[in-house]
Amino acid sequence: MSDIQEIGIRAREASQAMSTLTTEAKNRALEEMARALVARTAEILTANEEDRRGGRESGISDALMDRLMLTEGRIQEMAAGLREVAALPDPVGEVVDGWRLPNGLDIKKVRVPMGVIGIIYEARPNVTVDAAGLCLKSGNAVILRGSSSAINSNRILTEVIAHAAELAGLPSGCVQLILSTERESAVELMHLRDYVDVLIPRGGAGLIRTVVEESTVPVIETGVGNCHTYVDAEADLEMALNIVINAKTQRPGVCNAMETMLVHRDIATEFLPMAAEAMHERGVVIRGDEVTRKILPAVEEATEEDWYEEYLDLILAVRVVPTIAEAMKHINTYGSKHSDAIVTNDYEAARRFAREVDSADVYINASTRFTDGNQYGLGAEIGISTQKLHARGPMSLRELTSSKFIIHGDGQVRS
Amino acid sequence: MSDIQEIGIRAREASQAMSTLTTEAKNRALEEMARALVARTAEILTANEEDRRGGRESGISDALMDRLMLTEGRIQEMAAGLREVAALPDPVGEVVDGWRLPNGLDIKKVRVPMGVIGIIYEARPNVTVDAAGLCLKSGNAVILRGSSSAINSNRILTEVIAHAAELAGLPSGCVQLILSTERESAVELMHLRDYVDVLIPRGGAGLIRTVVEESTVPVIETGVGNCHTYVDAEADLEMALNIVINAKTQRPGVCNAMETMLVHRDIATEFLPMAAEAMHERGVVIRGDEVTRKILPAVEEATEEDWYEEYLDLILAVRVVPTIAEAMKHINTYGSKHSDAIVTNDYEAARRFAREVDSADVYINASTRFTDGNQYGLGAEIGISTQKLHARGPMSLRELTSSKFIIHGDGQVRS
Repeated sequence: MSDIQEIGIRAREASQAMSTLTTEAKNRALEEMARALVARTAEILTANEEDRRGGRESGISDALMDRLMLTEGRIQEMAAGLREVAALPDPVGEVVDGWRLPNGLDIKKVRVPMGVIGIIYEARPNVTVDAAGLCLKSGNAVILRGSSSAINSNRILTEVIAHAAELAGLPSGCVQLILSTERESAVELMHLRDYVDVLIPRGGAGLIRTVVEESTVPVIETGVGNCHTYVDAEADLEMALNIVINAKTQRPGVCNAMETMLVHRDIATEFLPMAAEAMHERGVVIRGDEVTRKILPAVEEATEEDWYEEYLDLILAVRVVPTIAEAMKHINTYGSKHSDAIVTNDYEAARRFAREVDSADVYINASTRFTDGNQYGLGAEIGISTQKLHARGPMSLRELTSSKFIIHGDGQVRS
Repeated sequence: MSDIQEIGIRAREASQAMSTLTTEAKNRALEEMARALVARTAEILTANEEDRRGGRESGISDALMDRLMLTEGRIQEMAAGLREVAALPDPVGEVVDGWRLPNGLDIKKVRVPMGVIGIIYEARPNVTVDAAGLCLKSGNAVILRGSSSAINSNRILTEVIAHAAELAGLPSGCVQLILSTERESAVELMHLRDYVDVLIPRGGAGLIRTVVEESTVPVIETGVGNCHTYVDAEADLEMALNIVINAKTQRPGVCNAMETMLVHRDIATEFLPMAAEAMHERGVVIRGDEVTRKILPAVEEATEEDWYEEYLDLILAVRVVPTIAEAMKHINTYGSKHSDAIVTNDYEAARRFAREVDSADVYINASTRFTDGNQYGLGAEIGISTQKLHARGPMSLRELTSSKFIIHGDGQVRS
């Protein structure tokens, strides 16, 4: 039996015990985990320093180094995150639906843990703690598989939280890290159907594509965000300007930032120069289609590839469209079905956009930057689903559960 | 571009139009489809006769021949099924959840169609019509991929219903059949991620395994049912007898029939002879563990493989267990997480069983045969999910939908 299989078996066993724990028991463990992280800060920083030394030696980028880095402050943030998860309502046991049949059978649909959740993620070591906290609170066992660049940090973080969780009475094996960072270990996890109920990849587009294509375990696709804002003919242009500036520049490196702005031709000559100036002031480079470049001759040309691009950077593709129908067609064709917005004061346009744009999160007169579990008031999120199965949009504790039917009878048989 | 890809593109286009149709428009189309099926009975029977001739020549089993066969009565049943689906409430547009954020944003979570649904199925031509009806009612486009044995029947059925649907105003391409029954066509469908949102296999364990392992399109696993009834020490033995007879013999060839009976040792000497006699009278062959065979010396020996078996036949595996814990361990180890029952009058045993048995449908004092969309009052079902992602248990119209967040604002931006 391979190491990964053994981890799977342990996780499955732990998940059975996890599924019947009380909320109090789970919260106590999260609290214990938070305390242990802070208490063992020195060890964690030492392990992290080792990863960073490795990173420096292999010459990884500054951005990656920043993601890898842990500090006393960041460890406190992870601990605070666990306490926030403890404070969230427990989704397990919620009766989602229920009714009585004519024959007297009482049917209840009840929320239950998913079972075993696998998380495959990249550089950020905080995912180790954040994901584990959400999975445990929702009654699941979790198998973590991080990247080699953060292996020392991930190992100590897992050790600290798993030890604390067990001390607090959670079953051994409820949080496990796959120590091998060879490609094979990830592939094996992706085929562990008997022991893993769902796999959630967290990272760049490449990682997500690999998991989606290779995994036989059901996957929830997360994260890639090629988001649009469509400024309609009937938009309040000041409002539109605020929204597009926010959507593009408030935090350009994240999945709910705007990548393409679509502008109705009737307001293009008025709006584009305003927008271009504001974008320019904030260091945003514009790539425009032909009509845009007639109005803004200085901007670069956008190619077909630009419409597909998730820049995650201070670059903005701009296209002028003749109708809302064209805007929606553009979004449904090139977008990633993540978050898309319209700015308009036209009732019918707002209603059509909300219905016909096939995205997880559709905004009328607001910035796409709100797509986030915390912003929505749902609490910490495990990711943002861009697929349609199971969960769509920000996924929080509820999305880490399944349901089962419980049927109470008095001897009913089928005739 | 391949044929399958073209089908995918047409389906995607059709799905966009489908998603905004009114309930009235969809119901009118279902009615039209029902009428056309009956009107074109002769053509359908001719095509079916061709399939049956092929079946006879290649010597398929009587059971398979029966599944393949269409009659006037069966065509009327299909038509009646479409009318029943028309009468069901439309899931699309249902506001599942909604709230206002402190910043004034109004968030709604609204049920939307899945988009494009692929169905891969085996012999029964009625699946062509049943699945299409459910997919269309829930606002989806559907791609059907049946087996070679039923290709002529499937082709005429699809032609009849697609033509009727279009006449009634549904978009062209909303129902399509893949004509090639080569293995490659199914494999290509399983990789059509850009155009297919979910794939539902309907058929035997082999088909389902293949789809689960090969598909990069998200799959909902359906159907395999290794179901148990546990007769507890505190069971009413008359009730238990009724339930196990019903679960085993009322229709042995279906997924919610009982395959293994577990009996608490305290009542085994009293209950097993009663059960064995009743089973024997109905032609059921028992395979028992060692303890069972001490009480019922005439029964065959059950091997480890028997515990995993979905007989779909008049065969019953029987095991005597010392505790409810052992019964649940057996079910969670060997079962297929489909439908499992306890018969007991012990409050604590009932409560434990409901919580700790990790199955889609858990029964207390009732037959597992009730696991069915119609029996549950949910209307026609597209299958019974035995996985935990997205849907678990009988899947009806709601389970063919996804959701999206619609956020209405007045210019809100994130700070």
